[in-house]
Amino acid sequence: MAGNTASKGRPDLAAMIVPLGRALVAAELPVLRRHGLAMWAYAVLLRLDDPPVRTQAALARDIGADKTRIIGVLDDLEERGLIRRQPDPADRRARLLSLTPAGRQLRDTVQAAIQQREERLLARLPEEDRRGFLNALQALAALPPSEISGA
Amino acid sequence: MAGNTASKGRPDLAAMIVPLGRALVAAELPVLRRHGLAMWAYAVLLRLDDPPVRTQAALARDIGADKTRIIGVLDDLEERGLIRRQPDPADRRARLLSLTPAGRQLRDTVQAAIQQREERLLARLPEEDRRGFLNALQALAALPPSEISGA
Repeated sequence: MAGNTASKGRPDLAAMIVPLGRALVAAELPVLRRHGLAMWAYAVLLRLDDPPVRTQAALARDIGADKTRIIGVLDDLEERGLIRRQPDPADRRARLLSLTPAGRQLRDTVQAAIQQREERLLARLPEEDRRGFLNALQALAALPPSEISGA
Repeated sequence: MAGNTASKGRPDLAAMIVPLGRALVAAELPVLRRHGLAMWAYAVLLRLDDPPVRTQAALARDIGADKTRIIGVLDDLEERGLIRRQPDPADRRARLLSLTPAGRQLRDTVQAAIQQREERLLARLPEEDRRGFLNALQALAALPPSEISGA
C-alpha cells in the first residue's frame, strides 16, 4: 500500500503502519504454529477474555471475522477443550462462549511468547519513543475506525 | 487479525497496528478518489520521487506490487502525463521511470491532503506521545521486515 517516502517531511502514516503490521503478523505466526493455533483461533482466545460475548455472531463481529467461517474455528477450539459453548438460560437461541482454564492457560503462554518478541523489537527504541509509541498506539487503537477514516 | 485485548498489560502490537493501518488506508481512499488515483498509482508516484528506479520490475518490488499488474497502472500514469518511461541509454532492455512536473505536483497535492487529515488525528495525542509515536514508527518502518518478523 502507499509508497514509503515523502519528498520532504515524514512518510504517510499508512505507508509506515501497513507494512509494519504485516511484519508483526508474520512474527506471530511461528509462535502460533508451535501451539497449533490459527490466527483466528488466537483472536477468539484473546477476545473471550473480555466480558461475556453472548453469541457467535457477536464474537465474529468483534474480531472482524466472517460469521460462517468462524464456526469451524470455534468447533476446533471446543474439541480441544479450550472454549466452552453453553446455552444461555435467558435466551434459548443464544449460546454463551467462554474460555476454559486450559484455554486461558494456552492463551497466556502464547501471548507471553509473542510479547516477548515484541519487547525485543521495542528495546531498539529510545525509552521515550517506546513509551510514546505504546501510549499513542493504545489511544489510537481505542478509537472507532470510523473516527480515523473520517478524521 | 489477532484479538484486541490482553488479560493484563497491553494488547499485542499487531492487534493494535493492523486495524489502525486498515483505517488509515480507508482514510486515504476518498482523497485518492478525488484525484483519480488508485492506491497503487499513489504508491508509484511516491516511490518515483526517490533516486532513479531503473526497471519496472524494480519499482514493483520496491512497492510490493505484482509485477504484471503494475504495468496497467504505469500505462495509465504515463497516458495522463504524470510519469515518463524512457529507454536507458546504458541498457537497452531497461526503461527509466521518472515523475513529470505534473506528476510531482499531483503527488504533492494529494500527499498534503492526506497528511493534513493525519495531523488532525495526531492532534488528539499529547505532544510527547505524538513525537514518540512518529519517531518510533519511522525507526521501525526503516527496518527490513525480516528483522521484525524474526526479532
